[in-house]
Amino acid sequence: MSEKFVADGPETTGIINQENQSAPKRNWQTWLIGRPLETADAPHQTIGKAIGLAIFASDALSSTAYATQEILVILAAAGTVAFGYAFPISIAIVLLLAIVTVSYEQIIHAYPGGGGAYIVSRDNLGDMAALTAGAALLTDYILTVAVSISSGVAQLVSAFPTLFEYRAYIAVGLVLLVMLVNMRGVRESGSAFAIPTYFFLGTMLLTLVVAIFQYLTGSLGSVVDPPPMHITHGVQAITLFLILHAFANGTTALTGVEAISNGITAFNEPRSRNAGITLVWMSIILGTLFLGITFIISKIGAVPSESETVISQLVRTAYGGRNLLYLVTIAATTVILIMAANTAFAGFPRLSALMAQDGFLPRQLTFRGSRLVYSRGILVLAIIASILIFLFDASVTLLIPLYAIGVFLSFTLSQVGMARRWRKSGQITPDEKVTERGSVLVYDPRWAVKMVVNGLGAFVTAAVMLIFAVTKFRDGAWIVLVLTPVLVAIFFTIHRHYQNLAKNLSLEQYMEPRRVSRHRVIMPVSSVHRGTLEALNYARSISADVTAVHVSIDPQEAEKVKAKWQQWGDNTRLVIVESPYRLLLEPLIDYIKKIAAKRQPGEIITVVVPQFVPENGWANLLHTQTAFWLRSALLFRRGIVITEVPYQIRKLDEEG
Amino acid sequence: MSEKFVADGPETTGIINQENQSAPKRNWQTWLIGRPLETADAPHQTIGKAIGLAIFASDALSSTAYATQEILVILAAAGTVAFGYAFPISIAIVLLLAIVTVSYEQIIHAYPGGGGAYIVSRDNLGDMAALTAGAALLTDYILTVAVSISSGVAQLVSAFPTLFEYRAYIAVGLVLLVMLVNMRGVRESGSAFAIPTYFFLGTMLLTLVVAIFQYLTGSLGSVVDPPPMHITHGVQAITLFLILHAFANGTTALTGVEAISNGITAFNEPRSRNAGITLVWMSIILGTLFLGITFIISKIGAVPSESETVISQLVRTAYGGRNLLYLVTIAATTVILIMAANTAFAGFPRLSALMAQDGFLPRQLTFRGSRLVYSRGILVLAIIASILIFLFDASVTLLIPLYAIGVFLSFTLSQVGMARRWRKSGQITPDEKVTERGSVLVYDPRWAVKMVVNGLGAFVTAAVMLIFAVTKFRDGAWIVLVLTPVLVAIFFTIHRHYQNLAKNLSLEQYMEPRRVSRHRVIMPVSSVHRGTLEALNYARSISADVTAVHVSIDPQEAEKVKAKWQQWGDNTRLVIVESPYRLLLEPLIDYIKKIAAKRQPGEIITVVVPQFVPENGWANLLHTQTAFWLRSALLFRRGIVITEVPYQIRKLDEEG
Repeated sequence: MSEKFVADGPETTGIINQENQSAPKRNWQTWLIGRPLETADAPHQTIGKAIGLAIFASDALSSTAYATQEILVILAAAGTVAFGYAFPISIAIVLLLAIVTVSYEQIIHAYPGGGGAYIVSRDNLGDMAALTAGAALLTDYILTVAVSISSGVAQLVSAFPTLFEYRAYIAVGLVLLVMLVNMRGVRESGSAFAIPTYFFLGTMLLTLVVAIFQYLTGSLGSVVDPPPMHITHGVQAITLFLILHAFANGTTALTGVEAISNGITAFNEPRSRNAGITLVWMSIILGTLFLGITFIISKIGAVPSESETVISQLVRTAYGGRNLLYLVTIAATTVILIMAANTAFAGFPRLSALMAQDGFLPRQLTFRGSRLVYSRGILVLAIIASILIFLFDASVTLLIPLYAIGVFLSFTLSQVGMARRWRKSGQITPDEKVTERGSVLVYDPRWAVKMVVNGLGAFVTAAVMLIFAVTKFRDGAWIVLVLTPVLVAIFFTIHRHYQNLAKNLSLEQYMEPRRVSRHRVIMPVSSVHRGTLEALNYARSISADVTAVHVSIDPQEAEKVKAKWQQWGDNTRLVIVESPYRLLLEPLIDYIKKIAAKRQPGEIITVVVPQFVPENGWANLLHTQTAFWLRSALLFRRGIVITEVPYQIRKLDEEG
Repeated sequence: MSEKFVADGPETTGIINQENQSAPKRNWQTWLIGRPLETADAPHQTIGKAIGLAIFASDALSSTAYATQEILVILAAAGTVAFGYAFPISIAIVLLLAIVTVSYEQIIHAYPGGGGAYIVSRDNLGDMAALTAGAALLTDYILTVAVSISSGVAQLVSAFPTLFEYRAYIAVGLVLLVMLVNMRGVRESGSAFAIPTYFFLGTMLLTLVVAIFQYLTGSLGSVVDPPPMHITHGVQAITLFLILHAFANGTTALTGVEAISNGITAFNEPRSRNAGITLVWMSIILGTLFLGITFIISKIGAVPSESETVISQLVRTAYGGRNLLYLVTIAATTVILIMAANTAFAGFPRLSALMAQDGFLPRQLTFRGSRLVYSRGILVLAIIASILIFLFDASVTLLIPLYAIGVFLSFTLSQVGMARRWRKSGQITPDEKVTERGSVLVYDPRWAVKMVVNGLGAFVTAAVMLIFAVTKFRDGAWIVLVLTPVLVAIFFTIHRHYQNLAKNLSLEQYMEPRRVSRHRVIMPVSSVHRGTLEALNYARSISADVTAVHVSIDPQEAEKVKAKWQQWGDNTRLVIVESPYRLLLEPLIDYIKKIAAKRQPGEIITVVVPQFVPENGWANLLHTQTAFWLRSALLFRRGIVITEVPYQIRKLDEEG
């Protein structure tokens, strides 16, 4: 290391030195998550449509693995005869998908830099809407992890029923695995994503083709040995409420559709066009899969069950048993569900960092860890999702009521924001550019059509949200309805804190602070020993005005301290504070407060606390942490500084 | 407050002032546990034999409430026919009681100042034995609380069966209640103890008299509607092992017999004589009660059960149902059991304070709280006992295997210690006084007889301990056999720490510490604001040699800091440390270590950390606690002092 920054003495003031850091040492963390990456290592590669589809579609496509089952769970309350409604309901859901897709296609072109619900709402609807969207999205990322992983484990358990009782543990284990992978940093390099996504697509389409061929030739059988049916809501008649309830559950098929609109920048140029085409393709595939799965499932007499998923029933019926083709297909489904959780691990930390930058979440979330990822956000997501999985025992059916409501809330806010944006865009002249809340707005000749499209999207998604909230209220939707405003309130509180802080710290209109004109040192002394004398020495080096204070519980002890101080105290004055109630800290704090009350302008009081540092950490439990308690008690008083002078205890044989 | 201690300036050094504290303010704690007491308030009253019996007998007498039941629990494995062995076993236990009583009578005369197993072992057998006794006693105080309260709740549940499922909660609630009472400080004032003890004695003797009268007149019935029998060990034949097992369980009747030997100083003069007579009386009552209860219980066909205690079965059989007399007797039994727990709340804190004074437990345990009691010891006892109750679901039968082994270990150590003491006392001349390990030894003409008595006591209690360890090993006695040496090892480790500390801090052969010859200040600066400038001001007041350090993650941010520093930095030098891996603390720590490595003799480095204090405590979560982490990292380095200069953030409207 060079000498250059060790400017040796006060005469070299005013110099600004620059110093480079060498790479951190290797330890268990580097072993677990890989060597640290330099900031300059951040990748800047873009991807094509086929890879883009693979990366962003896993969340949306994987929801076909549970959406049909969740429709049947509700219909089951009216008996298996009600299962006939599943297919019509899924047609309605695919129509909804079409509307949402067209709406998002417009967002992609309007926000080529990435248009998540938070950004679109912030730009067009203001803070309140943005924070509501933010709360909804953060909640949904957490639920995406919980639901996808739970569903993945449900597939696994369908194939290996003995694992059933360990499902919550397996699910949490998988969450931690995905967390670790993300802590290392997932390079969105394509092939790692493309293979499982297309593999899932291939196996699932093959299953559907085989099953539909059997159906057409009349050779499609029924589920052999079906699992016990799971009924959540008692026996009911087929009512409109029941149908809407089932519809609401089925809309979980749409979760993840918005993913592409967040990741536009990852695409090759022309990126908006490429992203838009990818979105349309993804929706077509999603719709086809969902319709096909629901159709076949309602033909084979599959029943919703906690012990075997309907996907598993479908696949083993199509392939005639739990054979290799069955296992491969189930494995592909499990993997795509885990990858869906993985996308949430990309989205949650990014959004929370964005919100932290805007001052609505703790600033620490903006720091990128040693692997260039927002590691704290990743950790928070993994912890909350794991807790949820434990609480709901990895049951998809129990988790679903909390899920889609937030998705549709953020859909609605995006669409409303976009509709408002088009209206404004129609009010400006073609060669004008308006910058509003940081985003640039230009005239669009087709603004009216686009406004209607997004308006329709907003209306439909809001209606779905309402249906969801009403039909699933008692099942758990109320939790989200309570949580969202609470989260928004927390965001605002954090924001107020940071704003207040900034005003407090601002140097505008700041006068040079008053020089320290007088420095008074108070030093608590419980007994006179080497540590005390080192601290006294330190105290005298920072001020000539030192007062030692002994709190006396035992008069004999006080006499001893007095006598020793006469010998060793170097003529420093000693004050004995009597403590008839045997308290140690309170009399000391009172004494300091009394002195502080008489503080003159520019006077500073430093409390120098001798503190020995034991040879082992545990031994701290054997000593009163005076400095810690004093600091807690006096933190809010101006002009008091607590300094702890450590005296390191060595093992005896070390020093002889 | 007077001016006298505010000696105003360094010219008045060397003065020693004395200052009285006023009474602390009232708060929720004073409401809960009462106003603080001055040290001078400590009571010094003594008591007579009748009151002494009431105070010290509750622990011993209350064990009759469960000892018989625990004999039957074991015998039940061989069927109800084995219950006939209960009475002969109880006769053997009463013989054991007689031997222990005579042995303790001798201890009381030899140790008029109080002769617990810890003190007797320490004086006569050395540290290792003393600490073993200490470990056994502390464990037993904890178990006394857990067992007595659990048994008390079992009586309550017998009377009110609907409470059964809440028994663990009720038990923990009672532990907390007893804790609170002890936090207030129990004046051993007599009547508060005398009434319930004699009330229990009265009701229980009345029950026995009624039952025995019925037995003699042939009108004693059998238990109506007996509860389901509780069998712990499967079906067995009547073997010697079974009998010894049952005997071991029954010896729990002896727990608490040693209480008087700890409390001799509480008696009127001649205190040893009074205490001795009280001990004998207590043993006679205990033996009578125990024999009577066991006799009647084996006549009425009572069965051991988790849902109803045998005491409850006895009482309702004697009184012909769950009537008022029954309820009063059960209530008296419950209260005496709670009082038994209360005696542990006196013993545990006193013993742990004694051991802490000797340096074997954390010194904090020697502090007496605002009510003159060792409140920390009380708290520790309540917490551990509550955990035990939860773990063992308030089941006396499950707790018993852990219990009596420690009691008999401490019995044995006391007796061995006494036997050794008598032998030594026989070796000195009549007019000689030998002081050994702080205790004075005189010649005793009857030393040989006394040695034999205590030797016999030691032998018998050791044999019982062995029987206990073998027969109850698998039921939980192994826990105590593992725990005791672990505790002893912990005591020694703590002792070594304190000894090492004392040698480190000793002023013997200590040279005046080297004066601080040079004081260098390093100040981390993340950004330039009011807080930074206040801290800079402070830093410059303690040394002219100040270096500000900015760890740069973002080059643009670093440029901003540089520019602002040129304007506001008051010509102090600024070092920029680049952090390509985006770490904040590590580069700073490395920098400080590098500077520290070049430290000259007598040079001190102070790290001044600007730290803002948010308006609310929770807001600390929104900021990195730099000073805290720096202190943790640099604590073990000599010559580095961390000082945090707080900058208090105010609410905006407060300052306008």
